[in-house]
Amino acid sequence: MLETNPPKGLRDFFPRDLLLRDRVFSAWRSAAELHGFLRYEAPVVESYELLARKAGEEITDQIYVFQDKSGRKLALRPEVTPSLVRMLSAGAGQHLFPAKWWTIAQCFRYEKMGKGRRREHYQWNLDIVGAASILAEAWILHAAVTALGRLGLGSDDIHVHVNHRQLLAQALHELGVPEDGHPAIFLILDKKDKIPEPALVEMLLGAGMAAPLCRRLLEMMRIGSLDELQASPLGQSAPAGQLYQLFAMAKSLEFDKFLSFDFGIVRGLAYYTGVIFEAYDVPRKFRAVFGGGRYDTLFQRLAGTDRPAVGLGFGDVVIGEILASRAGFTVPALAVDVCVGSFDESLTVDAFRVASQLQQRGIKVDLAVAVDKPRKFFAYASKRGAALAVFVGPDEIQRQSVMLRNMQSREQREVAIAELGANVLQELKGRGEG
Amino acid sequence: MLETNPPKGLRDFFPRDLLLRDRVFSAWRSAAELHGFLRYEAPVVESYELLARKAGEEITDQIYVFQDKSGRKLALRPEVTPSLVRMLSAGAGQHLFPAKWWTIAQCFRYEKMGKGRRREHYQWNLDIVGAASILAEAWILHAAVTALGRLGLGSDDIHVHVNHRQLLAQALHELGVPEDGHPAIFLILDKKDKIPEPALVEMLLGAGMAAPLCRRLLEMMRIGSLDELQASPLGQSAPAGQLYQLFAMAKSLEFDKFLSFDFGIVRGLAYYTGVIFEAYDVPRKFRAVFGGGRYDTLFQRLAGTDRPAVGLGFGDVVIGEILASRAGFTVPALAVDVCVGSFDESLTVDAFRVASQLQQRGIKVDLAVAVDKPRKFFAYASKRGAALAVFVGPDEIQRQSVMLRNMQSREQREVAIAELGANVLQELKGRGEG
Repeated sequence: MLETNPPKGLRDFFPRDLLLRDRVFSAWRSAAELHGFLRYEAPVVESYELLARKAGEEITDQIYVFQDKSGRKLALRPEVTPSLVRMLSAGAGQHLFPAKWWTIAQCFRYEKMGKGRRREHYQWNLDIVGAASILAEAWILHAAVTALGRLGLGSDDIHVHVNHRQLLAQALHELGVPEDGHPAIFLILDKKDKIPEPALVEMLLGAGMAAPLCRRLLEMMRIGSLDELQASPLGQSAPAGQLYQLFAMAKSLEFDKFLSFDFGIVRGLAYYTGVIFEAYDVPRKFRAVFGGGRYDTLFQRLAGTDRPAVGLGFGDVVIGEILASRAGFTVPALAVDVCVGSFDESLTVDAFRVASQLQQRGIKVDLAVAVDKPRKFFAYASKRGAALAVFVGPDEIQRQSVMLRNMQSREQREVAIAELGANVLQELKGRGEG
Repeated sequence: MLETNPPKGLRDFFPRDLLLRDRVFSAWRSAAELHGFLRYEAPVVESYELLARKAGEEITDQIYVFQDKSGRKLALRPEVTPSLVRMLSAGAGQHLFPAKWWTIAQCFRYEKMGKGRRREHYQWNLDIVGAASILAEAWILHAAVTALGRLGLGSDDIHVHVNHRQLLAQALHELGVPEDGHPAIFLILDKKDKIPEPALVEMLLGAGMAAPLCRRLLEMMRIGSLDELQASPLGQSAPAGQLYQLFAMAKSLEFDKFLSFDFGIVRGLAYYTGVIFEAYDVPRKFRAVFGGGRYDTLFQRLAGTDRPAVGLGFGDVVIGEILASRAGFTVPALAVDVCVGSFDESLTVDAFRVASQLQQRGIKVDLAVAVDKPRKFFAYASKRGAALAVFVGPDEIQRQSVMLRNMQSREQREVAIAELGANVLQELKGRGEG
C-alpha cells in the first residue's frame, strides 16, 4: 500500500489549495511591490552554523539538521533572516542601502504537533536594512496593513499590538534586574498569554526575581494604552518617545486604527532592540498573524557591519485559518476558459488544431485527451470548471464547424471553425461582465 | 568572519537573478495554463521510502537523506514524480482523470560538482495521467514548444529528439538480449553521448553482450530519421507506428520542425515505457533543456492503479545558460515607478503621505527612509532604477507642492500635491509608449 499522506507536519498543495494560497501570496506580493521592496530568495537549506549563530536556543532545538556527504552540517531553515544577513553581506558595494527586501520563504520547525501547528509554513518577510529612522517601522507596518486590505481585512478584524523592547528593558532595569538577566525574563514574559499567571510567577521566581518585583512587573505590563504609558514613570523615556512618533505617523496616514500599544508584547527572540509588534485577530481566537520589530545589532553580531534594521514575518497558516473562518468565505473552483473534445480518434487532430487556434488568442484550453460521446465530454468539461466547451463531431467537421456550448447557460450552437476564436472571446467577455 | 556564500551547490537569488528567473517561470506558467494544466505543489521533503521505491539506483545514491527526531527517514526530493503519484492517489474519486497537472519544484541531487552542475535546480513538471493516447505526448510537447516560444526560442535554437523505449527494447530483443537485461543496457546507452565509443563497447561487453551484437546495436542506433527507420527492419513495428502518428500530429499543428527522430535517445531511468524525448540546443553546446516520456507502469507499481501517464521535466539552469548565451541578451535592471524622498526629518510624514497617495493609484513607490539633500536623493533614486523621483523640500511644501523629476530626461518641475497622482500616471504612461 502506498502511503498517500505527506511526511508528518508537511503539506501537500492540491490545485484548489494553491488557488487559496495564491490569494494570500498575491496580496503579499502586491503590497511589497507597491512599497518598493526588492524580492530575493535564499536556499531552503542553509549551513547549520549560520542558523545557530543567529537563533536563540529555543529555535536551534527545533531545526531539522542533517549532514551532507562531506560531513557539512546543513539544516532546513527555521527562518530566513540569517540568510538575509548573509546575502546582504555578500559582494561589498553591490547592494543599495537602505535596502528594502522581501521574500516568501518556506520555513521548517520541528515542533510538537498540535491544533494548527505544522512543521512548515510559508513566511512573507519584509526587511529594511540600514535605516535607523522610525520611518522604517512605519513603512513596514503600512505594507503589512496594505496586504491585509488586499485580503479584505480591516481594523475590525486585525489589530497590531505594538511595544518597544527598550521600554521592557527599562522596566526591568528600574526593578533592578541586571541586563544579562533580561533575555531569560523576555523568554518567560513571551509566554504570558499562553500560561496562567501563577505558573508565570513561578517561572519568574525561578529565574531569580524576587516576589515583590514579580508583582510590580506584571502590574506594569497591564499598562493598556499610550495614554496610560504617558502617565506612567516610563512615559518620558526615549523608547516611549519613539512609540509616540510611530503612532503619530500612523495617524496622519490613517492607519493608526490598526495599532494599539500593548506592554504585553515581548517577542521571545533575544535579538530585538527597539519597536516590536505582533498582529492578532481582534477576537483573539487565533495565533499571531504577523510579528516583527527592530533588530539593530544583528548585522554587527553576525557580519561585523553596523546596519540598523527592521523586519516583519507574516505566515500563511494563521491568515489562511482566519480567512477560512469568515462569513462568505468560498473555496475557489478550478476553472479553465474552454475544454475541447472530439468524438473519436479520427478527429483528435482536428480537436488539437482547434485548441491551438484558441490558444494563439491567449485563451486557456484544456484538450480532453480521451475521446468520447458528447454527453460524457460535457460532463468532463463541467467537472473541469470550463466556461465553454467545444466539441468536434463527425457531422460538424464536414461543414468545417464545431459545437460550442456555454457550460453555464447550457446553450449550444454550431460555429464555423474560422469564426470560433472571435465567438469564444465574445462569450468569455460576456461572462466576465455577467 | 561570516561565510557569505550559500552551501556548496545551492543558489542565492538576488533581486536581479529573480527578474531573470521570472522570465523562465512565467513562460512555463503561461504555457501550462494555456494548455489547461492544474498546478500542484508537493513538499520539498518526502519520505525516503517513496523516493527510493520509484527511483533507479543511480538516483538513490544522490539523495540528501536525513532522519527526523522520531527516526523517520526523510529526504530532499531529487524529483517530483513520486510525489505526483502519491498526491494523485490520495482521496479516491477526488481527482478528475485524465489529470493534467503541473508544478515548478525545486529538486536536489547530491552530484559531483562540475561546470554547470548544481546540487539543486527548479524543474517545471508537466504530467498527463490516465491517458493512453499519443495525443497526450503531443499536447505536452506542444506546451513545451509554446514555453520555448515565449522565451523567444524557435526550432533554429532548440530541437526535441524523440525516440520510443519499445523500439529500443525491440532492437535488444532482436539481438537476443533477454528483457531483464534491458535496464542495464539502457543505462549504458544513456551515456552514449558522454563517453567515447570504445569505452561504451567495453561497458556493453561488461554487461554480458557479445561483441558482434554490440556492433549491430550501435549501428542500429545510428538510424537518423523517420525515413531511415521506416526502411529498417523495425520500420513496421507498433512503436514505430506511434512515432509516425506523433510526428504527423506535430506536422498538422506546425511544430514538427522542432522534432527529430533520434534512436540515440535512451533516458536512463528504467521506468519509461513508450515515447521518450530530450530537447537540446541545436549546436549541442549545452546539456538537455528538457526531457520526458511515457511511463505507463509507474502508478501500477507504486500505487496499484492502472494509470498510463506521460511527463516532462524542464529545468531552470540549462535554459538560463542558453538564454544568457544569446546575442542581445540583457540582464534586467531593477526598477520601481517612483522614489519619494524628503529634505529632513520634519518632512518625512509629508513624504510618507505623498507616497501613500501614489500607491492608492497602484503606483509602485520606494520611500527613501534616509533623509538627504536633493542631489543625494536623486543619486539613490537613479541607482534604485526609479522612472520618476518626487522630492519633498521645505519651500515646495509651503506651497503644497513637491518636485517631480523624470529620471531619464532629467527634467524636473514643481507639481501641486493634489495633482501629483495624475501627473505621475501621465509620465509613466508616456514612458511606456516612448
